[in-house]
This record gives sequence, C-alpha cells and structure tokens, in this order.
Amino acid sequence: MKINNDNVSLSIKHLLGIRELQPEDINLILLTADNFKAVLQRPIKKVPSLRDTTIVNLFYENSTRTRISFELAEKRLSADTINFSASGSSVAKGETLIDTAKNILSMKVDMVVMRHSASGAPHFLAKHINASIINAGDGINEHPTQALLDAYSIREKTGTLRGKKVAIIGDIMHSRVALSNIYLLTKMGAEVVVCGPPTLIPKHIETLGVQVSYNVRETLAWCDVANILRIQLERQNKPLFSSLREYALYYGVNKKMIDDLKKEIIIMHPGPINRGVEISSDVADSENSIILNQVENGVAVRMAILYLLAAKKEES
Amino acid sequence: MKINNDNVSLSIKHLLGIRELQPEDINLILLTADNFKAVLQRPIKKVPSLRDTTIVNLFYENSTRTRISFELAEKRLSADTINFSASGSSVAKGETLIDTAKNILSMKVDMVVMRHSASGAPHFLAKHINASIINAGDGINEHPTQALLDAYSIREKTGTLRGKKVAIIGDIMHSRVALSNIYLLTKMGAEVVVCGPPTLIPKHIETLGVQVSYNVRETLAWCDVANILRIQLERQNKPLFSSLREYALYYGVNKKMIDDLKKEIIIMHPGPINRGVEISSDVADSENSIILNQVENGVAVRMAILYLLAAKKEES
Amino acid sequence: MKINNDNVSLSIKHLLGIRELQPEDINLILLTADNFKAVLQRPIKKVPSLRDTTIVNLFYENSTRTRISFELAEKRLSADTINFSASGSSVAKGETLIDTAKNILSMKVDMVVMRHSASGAPHFLAKHINASIINAGDGINEHPTQALLDAYSIREKTGTLRGKKVAIIGDIMHSRVALSNIYLLTKMGAEVVVCGPPTLIPKHIETLGVQVSYNVRETLAWCDVANILRIQLERQNKPLFSSLREYALYYGVNKKMIDDLKKEIIIMHPGPINRGVEISSDVADSENSIILNQVENGVAVRMAILYLLAAKKEES
Repeated sequence: MKINNDNVSLSIKHLLGIRELQPEDINLILLTADNFKAVLQRPIKKVPSLRDTTIVNLFYENSTRTRISFELAEKRLSADTINFSASGSSVAKGETLIDTAKNILSMKVDMVVMRHSASGAPHFLAKHINASIINAGDGINEHPTQALLDAYSIREKTGTLRGKKVAIIGDIMHSRVALSNIYLLTKMGAEVVVCGPPTLIPKHIETLGVQVSYNVRETLAWCDVANILRIQLERQNKPLFSSLREYALYYGVNKKMIDDLKKEIIIMHPGPINRGVEISSDVADSENSIILNQVENGVAVRMAILYLLAAKKEES
Repeated sequence: MKINNDNVSLSIKHLLGIRELQPEDINLILLTADNFKAVLQRPIKKVPSLRDTTIVNLFYENSTRTRISFELAEKRLSADTINFSASGSSVAKGETLIDTAKNILSMKVDMVVMRHSASGAPHFLAKHINASIINAGDGINEHPTQALLDAYSIREKTGTLRGKKVAIIGDIMHSRVALSNIYLLTKMGAEVVVCGPPTLIPKHIETLGVQVSYNVRETLAWCDVANILRIQLERQNKPLFSSLREYALYYGVNKKMIDDLKKEIIIMHPGPINRGVEISSDVADSENSIILNQVENGVAVRMAILYLLAAKKEES
Repeated sequence: MKINNDNVSLSIKHLLGIRELQPEDINLILLTADNFKAVLQRPIKKVPSLRDTTIVNLFYENSTRTRISFELAEKRLSADTINFSASGSSVAKGETLIDTAKNILSMKVDMVVMRHSASGAPHFLAKHINASIINAGDGINEHPTQALLDAYSIREKTGTLRGKKVAIIGDIMHSRVALSNIYLLTKMGAEVVVCGPPTLIPKHIETLGVQVSYNVRETLAWCDVANILRIQLERQNKPLFSSLREYALYYGVNKKMIDDLKKEIIIMHPGPINRGVEISSDVADSENSIILNQVENGVAVRMAILYLLAAKKEES
C-alpha cells in the first residue's frame, strides 16, 4: 500500500518533541494519518508496512491508554512488539539508563517507544542508540504524539490550525501535554492562551508565544477550542492548590459555563478524565466534546509516526 | 477451514453469563469446540480464522491460567492480542470504567476479554461498546467460559449432560464458577446438588433449580460428577469457617471417601487447587479426576467462543 | 532456510544446565548461533523456523534483559509467545509448581522458558511435562544460556575456548552465571580461576576443576579473559562483606589495574552492571570490554537453542 508520497520525508530521525519539528514535518504526519484513519474504518485494519520491524515499548511510568494506543498502532502495522514496563523508582536511575540504551542497541531493535519520569530521558537514549526513539511522554517536558493527535483532531473538526484560537486550561506547569501543544500550535499559526491558577502557570511562559489568563470564563469566551488538562496530583511535589473541590469550583469547566457562551466551542481533554474536577461529566459527554475522537485519532496518528520514522530509517 | 455450519449462529453478541444463553447456544459452542479440540491435537495448532481481529485482554484481577488459556486460544486463532492487567483497587472505580469502555470503543478493538472484581462490570461495558465482550469472571457473579469448559469436559467423558447428577461442593456463596455451572447444568437438563457448610450456601438457592446438601459423603454417594470448588479466602470479607484444617476435615474430599463409594465418579476442580484443603492430592491425581482435561478443553472451548462471537459480529 | 546440518542434533531434550551437555552439544549450539548471528545482521531479521510453535516465558523472578532477549529470539524465529511474570513469593510454592507444570502440559505449549528463584525448579518441570524446558536461571544453580553466550563471545573474539585462561571474579557463591560458566569452560578445555573474597567462594570448588584466587591483580595478570560478576545483594541472606565501598576497593576492577597489566585482556560482565562497584565505568566502556557483544550474541545464541530444541522435539 502506498501511504505517502515517497519524495517527502521527515526532517527528523526520532520523535523526541514537537520543539524539534518543522511545520512540514507536522503537515506530513497529519496527512499520512489521514490515510491510516481511512484504513481503520475498514473491516481489515491491518497493513503489512512494518512487517519485520521490532518495536520495544519501554514504559518506565504507568500508562494504560498511551501504551495500548501505541501497541494497537504497531500491531496494525504488522510490527513485532515487545513490552517492558517498570515503575519509575528503582530501574530508571542515571547510570542504568545508559546501559539500558546500549543493551537495546546491541539487541538490534528497530524502534523504541519510551515513557519516562525524567525529562530528557528519550533524548539521552537517542544520542546513544541508532534505533528510532519515539517519546511517549518524558517527565514534565513533552508528549509529542499527544500534541499531534490533538492537532489532528482540531484540524479534522475545523479544517485548519492556522488562525484558530486554542485555550489550554489547567496545570500548565506540570503538563507535558501543554508544552507539546504550545510548541505545535504556535508553529502552525494558531493563537494560544494558557489558563489556570497562578501557582500552576510557569513564569515567563509568554516567551513561548502564548498569552496567559487566570480567568476560565473569559478564556472560554475567547477561544474556538478548549483543551482541558487532567489535574495530575501525582506530578506535584507539594500541593499547589488547597483542594480538588476548590480547583473544581474556580477552574473546573461545567455545562452552565459552556451554555452561557452561546457559541460553538470544541472541548478536548487528553484523558484520563477526573470527572467533576477539571471537567464535569455533562461537558465531557456533550456534543462539543471531541475527547473520544482524540482517542480514535491517536491510533491513526501513531501509525503515521511509526510509518514515517521507519521510512526515514530505511533511507539512511 | 470450515469450523461450523454457517446457517447456525449464537443468539448473543457478548458472552456475559450463562444466564443469557439458550440451550442451542450452549450446544453450538460445545460442537464448535469439538472441531477446535481436533485442531489442538495436530502438530500445527494454528488456524487463520481471526487474522485481522484485535482482542484486548483486560484483567483487573490477577489470573494466571485463565489469562494464559485465553491468550493461547486467541493466538491459535491468529488474532492480535493486547494485554492490560491491573490490580482492582486503583483503576477499577466507577467513573473510570465508563471511560475505559469508551476509550476501547474509540480505538476500534474487535473483542474484549474482561475479568473484573465488580459483579456486572462486563455487562456495563457491553452497554457502552460495540466490541464483543467476553466475561472472564466478574466478582461473585459469573465465569461463563469456565462453566462451558466444565460442561464440555463432562459431555466428553459421559456423552451427554442430560440427566447427569452433578454435585458442586464448597464455597457456593462466593463462587462465580458455581453460579455459572448451576445456570448451565439446569438449562441442559442435568440435576444439581450444591454442598458446603451452611454459612457458604446462599439462602433460597433452591429457586435456581438445585438441591442443597450439607453432607459431603451423602452428596458424593448421590452424584455422577463432583465439581469441587477452590476455597477462595481472598473473596471472603470475614472468615466464614473457623480454619482451613476444619474445612478440610468436614468438607475436603479425600481418597478414602472416594474408595468407600465403590462406584464410578468423575472429579472436577476449576483450579488452582489447594491440595490438602478442599481436595487431597491423591484424589486430584486419581483416575477419577478430569482436572487436566478441563484445562486442555478450556483452550478449545475459548477458541469456539471467540470464533462464534466473531462470526456473529460480522453478521451484524 | 537451512540452519544446521540435519544429521546432527542435540543429545538433550531440555536445556536445564550446562552440566547435562556434551561438548558436541555446545559446539552444535555455537555453530548454529553463527548462522543466526548472520541473520541478525540482515535488514530483515526474521525467519519462519518456529512458525506454529507456542512458547511460554514463565518468569517467577524479575528480569529485564534476559526476558527481552528471549522474547526477541522467539519473535525473530516467528514463534507465538506468551509471557507470564510473577514475583517469586506467592506463586512459586512447592505444590503449585506441580500444578503449573501440569497445566502447561494440558494447554499443549511447545516450549517453556523458565526463570525461578528455586534451584532445580526447571528440572522438576521437565520431569512432569513433555514441552521443551529452557532454564533461564534457577536460584543459585545454573543460567545455561548466559554461559553459552559468554562462550560464544569468547570464541568469537579469540577463535577457540580450548586453552584459554578465563577468570571469573566476584560473588562465586551465589552466582548461577559462575557455575554454568565453570561447567562449560572446563568441558571445552579452558582453564578457569575463580576469584573473590573468601566468604563468597564455596568450599571445595576446586573439585569442579577450577583454581581459586583471592587476589584480583594476580588473577588479572594470569588470565586472557576476565568475566566480572554482578554483586547481587538481593541473593544474599546476610551481608558477606562489610560494604559495597570496601568490595569495590578490594575486588572492583578499575582502569589503572587494566593499564598496569600491559597486555591484551578481554573484559566480560553478564549485566546489569553496578558501575563503580564490581567494575568501573571506564573499564566497562573500554576497548577491552565485549559486554555489549555479549548482549548481541545473546539473541543469536538463544535463537540457536530454541531452534535446536524444537528440531529435537520434532524428531522424537
């Protein structure tokens, strides 16, 4: 099957972050994902593209949906997959990571999908290994495949990213989803506002080309798309707001707020949802919500990324 | 390969419990399992029937044999399998289960095999998802594939279920194996006695069409088949008998009891066995025992179920 | 593909330990591994040899690299693999192991790769099961695939094992790697010195045909190859040396010691490395080190073992 035009290829060998991508790379991934999305609508969702490719899913942090989404993408491309899961604490210490990298290299694995609690872990791996590395989330740094599937979902719904007003609401400070989205949206010509409690917004974030708001209602009134982040208490070393209830009260998005807007708005969430905290159930399940489209598109976008990186590897 | 007659199909889209099955469904599953059992005797045990089908094994409760049996069945049908395991506590909370369901739906998985500590969890999933759901054990409700493999094993040994006298011995109250067996055996015309300490037999269980006995020797003297349940201390919130030793003394089945019967009797156990508690080693390993046939038949029966549900899905 | 000469086959049905192997078996495995190593250099690293073979990886002890190495070997031979992992404590009790064995037999699995904290567990399994068993490490007994990949790596570097002077340095007492290496190297005509603190060297080990030294510098001066063992605190019931720092001081191998030798020496380590304890980073990463070749060769050697045992099984 011909998935994309052979004359175009990614400028990168690894997908470490959106920061390293060119707008052309992003466009190529989104266009290729269109083809895979079509494949996923067919009764037979499998293509032989990565037959004879071995992919190791190296998850040092717990993950359900991202791991399953990647594994589905890999299997639908006919790759052989090997899973390795470890909770971050014991395994993921400095020196060991060097040796993990070198070991994988020696075993001649073709691609590594990696989630790690340390920011920069996949970048480190990429320096020591000639397999293609795909960052599935590193600490509080980036989660590039999430930003790409978010972009795909916005574009699918609205036709383009250029000129779109996108709000990212929640714990901006600890969110790798926020950072990857900021990089991607600004590169592609969207306008971005980040919104949350002052304690959860990094200082000087305006230098990334975004505006800051502390007012959810104003932010919702302004935007075309609201990407509502999960409150991840597990990533905060100390509590930065007094209670979940208070957070829900001041920053949670509920149905009345959406109804009061009297306008079209797209609601997104990277999942898993804390229903009743950052988002109410009726908003998550409303017609404005494209949360489940995001999940569906995740498989297609990840197939596109794996496919394009494998093609890039073959080229070299 | 032609596994069953195309003119017949299951009346159900999911296998949630034996309660929802028609006798014709049960017969169809057992007949189809005959074919797969023949496949498993061949040097090449693999058939291409479910090529291009993706099955997620969603195990919220620990399981070794059931998970491996399903995974073998899936792989021998050439399906792609994805495993997700989680201990029940953190993940399996109400709201999350909705979202798990919707996520799986969005990822376009074809079938979900699910074990969950909450009774009714797979039924809930089946309402929200168009994948076929197979219940691999839900709380203290049902374990339908176990009852089907038990029925297959009895029928294989004796020719028919109709008129057979089957005793189910042990902790009837907390056993999903017992409940599924009761539904199946009564539907198929077998006579059923449940036997155990009064504290471990639910009140009014006679309404399900079974007789109750508190005397193991009398029960063994009556029955053609004794299905001896595992004592599952992990499923009792408070101890319902004073000690394992006392349980073994009054309700454990040992060799002398069997020898005293001076008759043919079939001994079954769903595993894993607590040797010396509910069953002595010499009984478990005796010629009366078909415990290992049950394990072997489990793979064939699960292949049949997966095959028939996939065919049903295609139909719709 | 023709991997080895059909007229030759292993003398064993299971790979339980090096102790049971004939020198001809070892040679056959090493020669077959040469072919698989060539396969692993090709862009397409997969061969169809074990299509239709089901292999269960039964890991009762944690393992990353050995499990991944086996799984890669299995998938590159096109086998179907099923993973079962359990921490040793709860599952691995006497009686249960019998039943695990019988269950696997009943499910008609072709091969079982087993790691277990109890010495002799795979031998026990092999008595009760007609699947081929491969010992991936049993307690403090043997780790035969490690010894075979070590032998392969020495032979690859030096041409032969015969007459080579090999030192095994570290905790000889608790090391299954040491024991398997001693069996293999002495069978193949190498000279072996074991070196470590007196508390970590078993009494009467000379009866295995090796020499004992307590002096690392002298041992390094003598040998062609130094196989430096990992300090495995997790396998010592009580501490047998006062501190890691003291161990590193007296028995750790560092760059200066190697430089002082003014000779060619090959440095090996079974991994994972405790950098700065038994080996310094500059030694592990030096040109003398073949540690990563060991990892690479591990996949080829395990492919050879699986392939030859499958052929042996077919024969019978």
